[in-house]
Amino acid sequence: MIHFSINKNLFLQALNTTKRAISSKNAIPILSTVKIDVTNEGVTLIGSNGQISIENFISQKNEDAGLLITSLGSILLEASFFINVISSLPDVTLDFKEIEQNQIVLTSGKSEITLKGKDSEQYPRIQEISASTPLVLETKLLKKIINETAFAASTQESRPILTGVHFVLSQHKELKTVATDSHRLSQKKLTLEKNSDDFDVVIPSRSLREFSAVFTDDIETVEIFFANNQILFRSENISFYTRLLEGNYPDTDRLIPTDFNTTITFDVVNLRQSMERARLLSSATQNGTVKLEIKDGVVSAHVHSPEVGKVNEEIDTDQVTGEDLTISFNPTYLIDSLKALNSEKVTISFISAVRPFTLVPADTDEDFMQLITPVRTN
Amino acid sequence: MIHFSINKNLFLQALNTTKRAISSKNAIPILSTVKIDVTNEGVTLIGSNGQISIENFISQKNEDAGLLITSLGSILLEASFFINVISSLPDVTLDFKEIEQNQIVLTSGKSEITLKGKDSEQYPRIQEISASTPLVLETKLLKKIINETAFAASTQESRPILTGVHFVLSQHKELKTVATDSHRLSQKKLTLEKNSDDFDVVIPSRSLREFSAVFTDDIETVEIFFANNQILFRSENISFYTRLLEGNYPDTDRLIPTDFNTTITFDVVNLRQSMERARLLSSATQNGTVKLEIKDGVVSAHVHSPEVGKVNEEIDTDQVTGEDLTISFNPTYLIDSLKALNSEKVTISFISAVRPFTLVPADTDEDFMQLITPVRTN
Repeated sequence: MIHFSINKNLFLQALNTTKRAISSKNAIPILSTVKIDVTNEGVTLIGSNGQISIENFISQKNEDAGLLITSLGSILLEASFFINVISSLPDVTLDFKEIEQNQIVLTSGKSEITLKGKDSEQYPRIQEISASTPLVLETKLLKKIINETAFAASTQESRPILTGVHFVLSQHKELKTVATDSHRLSQKKLTLEKNSDDFDVVIPSRSLREFSAVFTDDIETVEIFFANNQILFRSENISFYTRLLEGNYPDTDRLIPTDFNTTITFDVVNLRQSMERARLLSSATQNGTVKLEIKDGVVSAHVHSPEVGKVNEEIDTDQVTGEDLTISFNPTYLIDSLKALNSEKVTISFISAVRPFTLVPADTDEDFMQLITPVRTN
Repeated sequence: MIHFSINKNLFLQALNTTKRAISSKNAIPILSTVKIDVTNEGVTLIGSNGQISIENFISQKNEDAGLLITSLGSILLEASFFINVISSLPDVTLDFKEIEQNQIVLTSGKSEITLKGKDSEQYPRIQEISASTPLVLETKLLKKIINETAFAASTQESRPILTGVHFVLSQHKELKTVATDSHRLSQKKLTLEKNSDDFDVVIPSRSLREFSAVFTDDIETVEIFFANNQILFRSENISFYTRLLEGNYPDTDRLIPTDFNTTITFDVVNLRQSMERARLLSSATQNGTVKLEIKDGVVSAHVHSPEVGKVNEEIDTDQVTGEDLTISFNPTYLIDSLKALNSEKVTISFISAVRPFTLVPADTDEDFMQLITPVRTN
């Protein structure tokens, strides 16, 4: 029968991190609980939604936790409700005691709250990943790659494989990360500092977004372990498991053009604001597009909605080379792309009005390329 | 045909204030527009939802507005969309020009946006209130009174009169403000510094909440004008009209008890946090109540939910006098009351387990009294 005392604020923070894997609307009711597992080494909080699982370990050695363990055991508690109760407690210290089977008493200051829990035997077992040599990445770098690619993954389940991000390591250090929803594509390549075993996996973009939220910037590095159908991201205290998507990711290399007829360099903020104005009116048009016109070195954006009105504006450019062109596309795709760029300037290269165009940062050496498909308007 | 130029940020701020009276889901479609009225004196923005109307005047004399009026007129523009367009403009200055009947061009920097408007003749006339001698109040004081009472008004339309706040001026300077939803009541009384004409009106609590949002703290005083079925709050630039509720407000004076058997003084924050813990569990019980037990000078709170668990806690008190008592009530009512208090300490006075109890601030001289009806639990 569990008995420990702990710093309320640290406990609450760990609960909130674990909660990111827990949905109160899960089809499997037991997954709306958090599992609390108390051993001699510390307290582990476990949450899962079937896709993602998070294990958060609070060590007896962590001085900020003020953890005093008197008796061991496991219990399941309704996660959202338990977190609300913990955050409402009056004192900075909290005493957690199991008084009879699956019933706990929380004591803090003069408040005493009794809660009913569930038998921890009901909780599904999280598949373990055999400890091999992990790939080690800087957390900041991995979160940057996710930010640059995951947004381009599909949100529709019609082609499930496209809801993931394709991570490939080849020649032991060449990392390629790609996402596409078939209308746009984002690809980041980089060379790792240390050699590692090659891999080829498709990680659900939703899992990657949760990873970015769970692994805060104070966690310097993350160890990555691969298994058949899942992947484990691990830091000192957090183990983050996610299922992988099954199936073959399409060959995206063949989609990437190399010869262009028109190339323009823009200020990123300037172009983004212009596209946001265009979108206000394009969303009231039938095909939802903005028309970009390149003529005699001058670039302008045009939208005409018969019901609402018109936008006409010249966009400042740093450089325009090549042929004149008129091309139509969904401004939301361009806005999303510009948001993912960490540069001040962007170079956009066109082939023709009916072929995808590319975006690359104009002022960094990073191998980061995005592709957007135009819309044929007549 | 309208033509003026104006500072974009000031224009946007005035539009957002006016927007508070405009609902995009109004049953009368024309009320989703903002009316822009340009005269030699300045630009007036008008919005209304049929209950509340706001007129916001930007004077030619206001230097921050940078207003340059070339040509006069009126037009209606879809409010939400127009605000989005204005906030997206690139430059700090904006040129607003009607190019043909009910079609305008906004020019800002290199951006040119054409919008279709509607004929201003379609807009309903706002009933004018004949200028008599107004009641003048400090904005801060009026907002404080609203904050202390409006929350207690009913949100249900079954007795429409109770959705309002009753404002009564008698003997030319005695102001009484009351709201009740029949489960709880809040009453603020004060003596005005200057004599004024007596009045007796019921103002919709929703209108009062909008008033508090529209009249920002930099507006020092507000003039109040009364008409048969409406009221006008006016500052230098803003005229805020609201309809009044028709019918007789119930006589609330007879509800207020004067003799008590038990009186307790609490710390407001402490009691509120205790009630918030109690509510976590009481919301999972059948009657949703917390039981307060006063015994031998010790006060404790108890909730027992057979499904979820229990709360038992002692609540610190500053003073307890009178008889022992056990009383049950909805903790949400007590939490709302404590939120409305501007004092650190509160005195709560009880008659018995089945009679309403009162709350008054314990450390101010204000005549501010709240009443909460208990729940009979057996």
